[in-house]
Amino acid sequence: MDKINLKEKLSKFSDHWSPKVIAEMNDYQFKLVKIQGEFVWHNHDDTDETFIVIEGEMKIEFENETVELSEGDMFVVPKGVEHKPWAENECKVMIIEPRGVVNTGNAEGDLTASNDVWI
Amino acid sequence: MDKINLKEKLSKFSDHWSPKVIAEMNDYQFKLVKIQGEFVWHNHDDTDETFIVIEGEMKIEFENETVELSEGDMFVVPKGVEHKPWAENECKVMIIEPRGVVNTGNAEGDLTASNDVWI
Repeated sequence: MDKINLKEKLSKFSDHWSPKVIAEMNDYQFKLVKIQGEFVWHNHDDTDETFIVIEGEMKIEFENETVELSEGDMFVVPKGVEHKPWAENECKVMIIEPRGVVNTGNAEGDLTASNDVWI
Repeated sequence: MDKINLKEKLSKFSDHWSPKVIAEMNDYQFKLVKIQGEFVWHNHDDTDETFIVIEGEMKIEFENETVELSEGDMFVVPKGVEHKPWAENECKVMIIEPRGVVNTGNAEGDLTASNDVWI
């Protein structure tokens, strides 16, 4: 029954592309992640995925368009849709998705992060 | 496939205690609500409920404690737990919960808002 402060949690890590779980709601998790540079093209076969920008700017590339997100913007990537997040400068993001979702979805590789790491 | 800006959505309504849906992720909804004054004691039998403070300050009273939340704080109220949100001054909040959850839970009454109202 503790409140969670987003900025305090963000101060606890500095690595990129490695989501940290800060809370659970039913079988969903709230994660914070710092991103910089390009991620990999991937999709999540069985779930939508929500991005909320806490600080900075990021882009999500899709096959036919690119969405630019700034602080206070959110975007729900529909399940199965190929996307590639990237950020020129460091961007701090909250991700909301079901427990167990792996960051690289169907594209396991160097950027695949450990799942279910709490801070 | 549109991004959603929280402040822009918040500028579209002014009533209190009447959550507006801004996005869906699977069978969950993201809602914005402006609150001021006291809500009713209630619980949600079958789901957790997440509060994220976008602007202002609010409190959530529980049987044996009161949690004070400011901008950038979040709190997950566990399912079945009696709680009463309130705010001395207007507070702008994001609520995340499954589609279909009614704002007053088990305590239907004057403050029960229409469900599934999108902005």
